[in-house]
Amino acid sequence: MGLGTRWTQFRPRGRVATFADLNFKGAGQVFFQENSLTGVLFLAGIAYGAVVAKTPQVLLGAVIGLLVSTITAIALQPDEPSLRKGLYGYNGVLVGAALPTFLGITPMLWFYLVVASAASTVVFMATATVCKTWGVPALTFPFNLVNWIFLMGAFQFMRLRTTDLNPGQFPSQVTGAAAHVNITPGFLVEALLKNIAQVFLINNAITGAIFVVALVVSSVWAGVFALGGSALAIGASLAMGAPAPDIHSGLYGFSAVLTAVALGCVFYRPSPRVTVFAIFGVLVTVAIHSMLVSALTPVSLPPGTAPFVFATWLFLLPKKRFDPVQHEHLAGGAAEPSPLARATTSKSVNPLHEKENQ
Amino acid sequence: MGLGTRWTQFRPRGRVATFADLNFKGAGQVFFQENSLTGVLFLAGIAYGAVVAKTPQVLLGAVIGLLVSTITAIALQPDEPSLRKGLYGYNGVLVGAALPTFLGITPMLWFYLVVASAASTVVFMATATVCKTWGVPALTFPFNLVNWIFLMGAFQFMRLRTTDLNPGQFPSQVTGAAAHVNITPGFLVEALLKNIAQVFLINNAITGAIFVVALVVSSVWAGVFALGGSALAIGASLAMGAPAPDIHSGLYGFSAVLTAVALGCVFYRPSPRVTVFAIFGVLVTVAIHSMLVSALTPVSLPPGTAPFVFATWLFLLPKKRFDPVQHEHLAGGAAEPSPLARATTSKSVNPLHEKENQ
Amino acid sequence: MGLGTRWTQFRPRGRVATFADLNFKGAGQVFFQENSLTGVLFLAGIAYGAVVAKTPQVLLGAVIGLLVSTITAIALQPDEPSLRKGLYGYNGVLVGAALPTFLGITPMLWFYLVVASAASTVVFMATATVCKTWGVPALTFPFNLVNWIFLMGAFQFMRLRTTDLNPGQFPSQVTGAAAHVNITPGFLVEALLKNIAQVFLINNAITGAIFVVALVVSSVWAGVFALGGSALAIGASLAMGAPAPDIHSGLYGFSAVLTAVALGCVFYRPSPRVTVFAIFGVLVTVAIHSMLVSALTPVSLPPGTAPFVFATWLFLLPKKRFDPVQHEHLAGGAAEPSPLARATTSKSVNPLHEKENQ
Repeated sequence: MGLGTRWTQFRPRGRVATFADLNFKGAGQVFFQENSLTGVLFLAGIAYGAVVAKTPQVLLGAVIGLLVSTITAIALQPDEPSLRKGLYGYNGVLVGAALPTFLGITPMLWFYLVVASAASTVVFMATATVCKTWGVPALTFPFNLVNWIFLMGAFQFMRLRTTDLNPGQFPSQVTGAAAHVNITPGFLVEALLKNIAQVFLINNAITGAIFVVALVVSSVWAGVFALGGSALAIGASLAMGAPAPDIHSGLYGFSAVLTAVALGCVFYRPSPRVTVFAIFGVLVTVAIHSMLVSALTPVSLPPGTAPFVFATWLFLLPKKRFDPVQHEHLAGGAAEPSPLARATTSKSVNPLHEKENQ
Repeated sequence: MGLGTRWTQFRPRGRVATFADLNFKGAGQVFFQENSLTGVLFLAGIAYGAVVAKTPQVLLGAVIGLLVSTITAIALQPDEPSLRKGLYGYNGVLVGAALPTFLGITPMLWFYLVVASAASTVVFMATATVCKTWGVPALTFPFNLVNWIFLMGAFQFMRLRTTDLNPGQFPSQVTGAAAHVNITPGFLVEALLKNIAQVFLINNAITGAIFVVALVVSSVWAGVFALGGSALAIGASLAMGAPAPDIHSGLYGFSAVLTAVALGCVFYRPSPRVTVFAIFGVLVTVAIHSMLVSALTPVSLPPGTAPFVFATWLFLLPKKRFDPVQHEHLAGGAAEPSPLARATTSKSVNPLHEKENQ
Repeated sequence: MGLGTRWTQFRPRGRVATFADLNFKGAGQVFFQENSLTGVLFLAGIAYGAVVAKTPQVLLGAVIGLLVSTITAIALQPDEPSLRKGLYGYNGVLVGAALPTFLGITPMLWFYLVVASAASTVVFMATATVCKTWGVPALTFPFNLVNWIFLMGAFQFMRLRTTDLNPGQFPSQVTGAAAHVNITPGFLVEALLKNIAQVFLINNAITGAIFVVALVVSSVWAGVFALGGSALAIGASLAMGAPAPDIHSGLYGFSAVLTAVALGCVFYRPSPRVTVFAIFGVLVTVAIHSMLVSALTPVSLPPGTAPFVFATWLFLLPKKRFDPVQHEHLAGGAAEPSPLARATTSKSVNPLHEKENQ
């Protein structure tokens, strides 16, 4: 499927090339693509968007985050196949892009970013351990958890700056005035592409176009579902009346894009039935995004890609022919009558009683 | 136990009757009763309360929620026995009753409610998958999660109305003035019955009485523990000085009623020891309810039946003779010295080193 | 390792002595020490701090919490070895110390405290059941959950007083003025010891010194990592510019102290590699503490030892050579095409279809 298969097979020679390959695949895995070329194009898209927006710190942070999380993984010696596939880098690159986006640039920010990026690898390993119990992937939960910890933590540190975060307030109902905008073809095309660019926190339609190319070289299906998920998220959020400037900036669609790709062609095989399921998942993702926007308002946090994570987990966990625990008596609970009262064993579980028997 | 056993055995003939039976049992399962007659009486109680309160949208929403969640389940083809027992309907009926209770009636509300009700089935399957690991049921966690997502999400959508939710504020200490009320026998009887009616979000004592009948036709124990849990919750919240108008409306007892039935006679066999355990569980439920009332104040959300879910999980998870992980060295952690340093295997887990060896 | 080994072996004779031993070990297990002498010294340190601060209710609460949680455990008949080691007491002693620290003294507080302490045992058993799935300990999560439930719940009860909790507000950036303090050797020594004393919510350097002695009699390593974790937390929070008065009071270090002991010498064997891992864990603990201080500001809650719990779980969960779920098609999901469409079995999972076949 596309140019990417050759790159998936690609095995570089030499220490530096191998390390670079790990990192490029790490960037690619943000969209579930084990493909170095995809990763290179993702970094190129970030670079373009960061330079245009005069925020080179976002590119620098992304690169540092990618390197630090990968190096941390090598030091912790996890399973080699996952390391080779870039699974230990995709959270770090996002942490590195997010912190300089939301926090002011101070010298201590870079120390903070290194600790956060290293932590993202530990959190990935912890999350993956828990998730494996139910056969689901960690997704970008590690990025979101680390992002929230380090953004919220910054309020307590004099040598960091949270001035770019929204001031805390109570949730309030969006009204017509706030949601109004003139919907033009230009609006729709920009929103379509920015939804994809914002996965890496870039508010730039050209970057979004570069990301589509990056996906297609690895998987045509990934490109199709990314664009389809983006379009559906725009339609749903316009229909419900979400704030149009946020729809335009891609904020109402980047989690939906990831959900569409994840459910539509990565974790399920593409099919009409799976497509219906993915459409449903995208609608729930938009609802969870809106919910987190409201719920996080008092603590000044952005929702990140958490809506994608929660929606995709909810849609991957149900198994066919699953048999839930029924509404009936459960055996072995602590409130049941003591087994000792019915047993003839002389061994007491109550040390006070045991002492008396001696 | 009661008239209900015959209904539990009841197997309808024909497609429409089977589908209706699934839905009635779905309503009955809100109180853990696989009983069509109980479900019919629950719907009758909702209808009575909704008509008296001039809120027919609550009845309409409940019916839509029930139908949509059941149809979604049929489409997802889960295990047939659970489907027959109504386990795929009890969260949907609550979602359908809750959204029109807390959100204003707009055309988009009904589309929103359909998505939410369908989502409740997916969330039930996801929750049940996770909960099964520890042998505990999903309870109404899916309803509560979906309810919170879609209520909070509504703030961001111009075509929905959150005006019936409390405006956000910081938690504040209840004082004597707010908690004062004249406690009369009428107060106590109404609170006793409204605690049961509020499980379906109905503020009506007659509905509560209908619900007691609905329980007794299925299980006398369920009726006894519902009334007992209700009485205990009233006593505890009056003793602590909770706001009396809220006690009167049944808000301090509906989660406690569910906990009492769940712990007292559904998941444990009724016994004196189990009754003591259930009493303890009801007290903790009242504390968790108060906690959630405070904690959710800044984000305008009601606690729903989440206090019942959390308390019942906490009281079902402990097993007899359980052996916890001890405070001692754990094997296999990522921080341990590398097994490679001690091993003679030539296979490296570090691809950089491996490359060098070539 | 120290005087403590003899006390670990100590098996008292007689009912009262056994019960006392269970409780002393319960106090010792707050720092993972199965050692009665350590527990006695911890209680002595609490007594000293409470008397000096004229808050005898903290000592009284700690003793009641310890007794009630241990008695509840005996009634629930869990595994005897864990009961003997004091694992059913360490959360109760903390609940008992915390509630009178943060809530005003009213008659109902003591009833509330008894319910909370008993609940801490049930919550410990529930948490340990869940945590055992991944081979990690429950830590003080039960204390923190119960503490948050009962502190937040108190806002809704007229007969309790939340006046000692901070009034709710939105998070705000710490500035130079708030963080400024004159750093002297006295400041550093007091912070070093108060970080250890605050594990039991005592703001007193002498108590901290008593606690160090209590640790060393059980394990020299525990004393070393407690002091090292404390020093590192002071350095990191001063470098980042956390509020200096809070650093001085030990608020920025008590979770870090627990993380350092847990990762450095309890759950991993002490080694240079483990020490590096523990240092990393302490830095993440300080970040999580700052995050929780910010995030809990709107609901007036203190972070308790939750930063230690979350950080230590994150650093214990990763296993060597762990193989995460990959980014590829997962089998068995509910969205997959129906197995019935491909199967020849006559058994339908859709009861509507089955009825039609009859």
